[in-house]
Amino acid sequence: MRLTAIRLSDGRELRYYDGDGAPERTEADRRGLAQVATESELRYDPLLDQWIMVASHRQDRTYKPSAADCPLCPSTGERLTEIPAPDYDVVVFQNRFPALAPSDGDGLERGTLLARPGAGRCEVICFTADHDASVASLRPEQVALVVQAWLDRSRALAEQPGVEQIFCFENSGPEIGVTLDHPHGQIYAYPFVTPRAARMLGAAKQYRARYGRNLFEDRLADECRDGRRIVLETEHWTAFVPFAARWPYEVHAYPIQRVPDLPSLSPAALAELPELYLDLLGRFERLFELPAPYISAWHQAPLHHPDRSEFATHLELFTVRRTSDKLKYLAGSESGMDAFANDVAPEAAAAALRELRPIPA
Amino acid sequence: MRLTAIRLSDGRELRYYDGDGAPERTEADRRGLAQVATESELRYDPLLDQWIMVASHRQDRTYKPSAADCPLCPSTGERLTEIPAPDYDVVVFQNRFPALAPSDGDGLERGTLLARPGAGRCEVICFTADHDASVASLRPEQVALVVQAWLDRSRALAEQPGVEQIFCFENSGPEIGVTLDHPHGQIYAYPFVTPRAARMLGAAKQYRARYGRNLFEDRLADECRDGRRIVLETEHWTAFVPFAARWPYEVHAYPIQRVPDLPSLSPAALAELPELYLDLLGRFERLFELPAPYISAWHQAPLHHPDRSEFATHLELFTVRRTSDKLKYLAGSESGMDAFANDVAPEAAAAALRELRPIPA
Repeated sequence: MRLTAIRLSDGRELRYYDGDGAPERTEADRRGLAQVATESELRYDPLLDQWIMVASHRQDRTYKPSAADCPLCPSTGERLTEIPAPDYDVVVFQNRFPALAPSDGDGLERGTLLARPGAGRCEVICFTADHDASVASLRPEQVALVVQAWLDRSRALAEQPGVEQIFCFENSGPEIGVTLDHPHGQIYAYPFVTPRAARMLGAAKQYRARYGRNLFEDRLADECRDGRRIVLETEHWTAFVPFAARWPYEVHAYPIQRVPDLPSLSPAALAELPELYLDLLGRFERLFELPAPYISAWHQAPLHHPDRSEFATHLELFTVRRTSDKLKYLAGSESGMDAFANDVAPEAAAAALRELRPIPA
Repeated sequence: MRLTAIRLSDGRELRYYDGDGAPERTEADRRGLAQVATESELRYDPLLDQWIMVASHRQDRTYKPSAADCPLCPSTGERLTEIPAPDYDVVVFQNRFPALAPSDGDGLERGTLLARPGAGRCEVICFTADHDASVASLRPEQVALVVQAWLDRSRALAEQPGVEQIFCFENSGPEIGVTLDHPHGQIYAYPFVTPRAARMLGAAKQYRARYGRNLFEDRLADECRDGRRIVLETEHWTAFVPFAARWPYEVHAYPIQRVPDLPSLSPAALAELPELYLDLLGRFERLFELPAPYISAWHQAPLHHPDRSEFATHLELFTVRRTSDKLKYLAGSESGMDAFANDVAPEAAAAALRELRPIPA
């Protein structure tokens, strides 16, 4: 893998992650972009004990451009995109319309009204230069570069002042609001511990106090013992539909040897990851007549949390599609009360996913 | 208000809430419906400390019928619906495809895998017999009947064994997955404390311990003092966009005298509620060219929670629409990390909603 770091014309950083033998990436960004004024602010909700990212500059962000105007394709001739080179393997750059961005200001603290200036960082990761590819159709070597980029950015962003948690994720499909078709994911560097991570670590801490064991390890062992919701097992990974799944089709994949984050994965677990990931994405692609929209979320331990060592990095992959023509919506119960109803029995979801074996290459 | 209680042909309960002078509701359900086998189960997610409702019988529920087949219209001639009478003012009945329903079974407790048989109840509330009405267009007297039904059902469901929390809510608009056009809401009687309520009560308890005051009251006072996000104030209610709003347009309405639930509201606060509610819904209807889809959620204190007295009943009303042609989706950050990004500054949202004054009747 060869890393080439450049700056775009508005000062944002861009990094090429290329396979051996790729040409050098020497092209400059010729667009002469003006800087976007970001007015990101973090506001605290005292009722839910969580930070909200308020970023009103994002209302103007790029919205469903035609393929000819895709900003994530390589630049060719006079068609200049976010990526100056005429080709790339994998590329990561700072989002021009970030939900998280450093900003000036003093914040606010007036009774229960609490805010601080924006901080953190949002990056875009392009998985391939091929606009029409699906991620599930990539070669394992290509996904290995994606994994390398996740590791590299997770390590680098962890060094940035004020960053508390790194989140590598992908939204796929217009049904969940994806505004750019080009295969890509995102990397958020949050300046706070996310509510989800805080809750999991709180549960793990209580479990440790009560049983003297790790909650994630016990849950994985219980799922393996029960067996009915296992989707696939490799030498170093286990993927299953959780007993209390919230989404119609939801898979969690854990390395068998628990580690807090992606950079801590063993070389053996890392080596298996590209094929495991492609296998799971392929099953989601073949679950219905059309590829299922999905969210792919890599949970990693917050960087400085006191209970960080209790965490277990894992993939959460789910679709909002519940039948070939129906979606699961987060309506009143989910959005108002955080109480999820799941219309697909987790055992049935696991059986369906298990039967969708990989297509031989 | 006159209450008439009957049973549908499959044994479900139905209640008419009629204004004075309405004809008696004596019609029987002539459909001879077979009972739906409900296999609701509650499963515990140990990582997030919450119960999930698994209800696979719901996959077959009624999905976007044509207006001629609407099951929520009154019955006329040979067209038989869920409501046997040829007209009604407001009606409440048990959902034929409930997410929550009592069921047999022993549950499961095997290490971290924990389940119990279904319990609780889901009811449908029809706000008017007029299929094409919008709720915002109803007369205050009609909404007063809706409020009476909310109060009556909140009191009655609280007496049912195992019920921990009552939730009156409405989903409006196909953008959030509403499958029946007819103006209606829902009432859930949860057999557990919802994650949202638990979190708010946890925050209120900590706040009390630290400051010796009530968190909800202090937050309302802080919003009033700041003033920039107030949408409207009446003698007994205050409606505002929260400082740390999560949705593009989100209004919380509190009675000025804090009470834990709807049945505890003072007669004076109750008297103002229909016009206040219609005013807020009307603003959401006029916010964009087309009526905004919305979720209307009435937060009420859990029934048996030790910190119940700290709660403040309130309305949370929000839309997922962020511009006339764009929606806010819960993608990776929201669905994976519970970390919300809001693209509309709460002060701008409040200003927009404030300017949409009620249309004189």
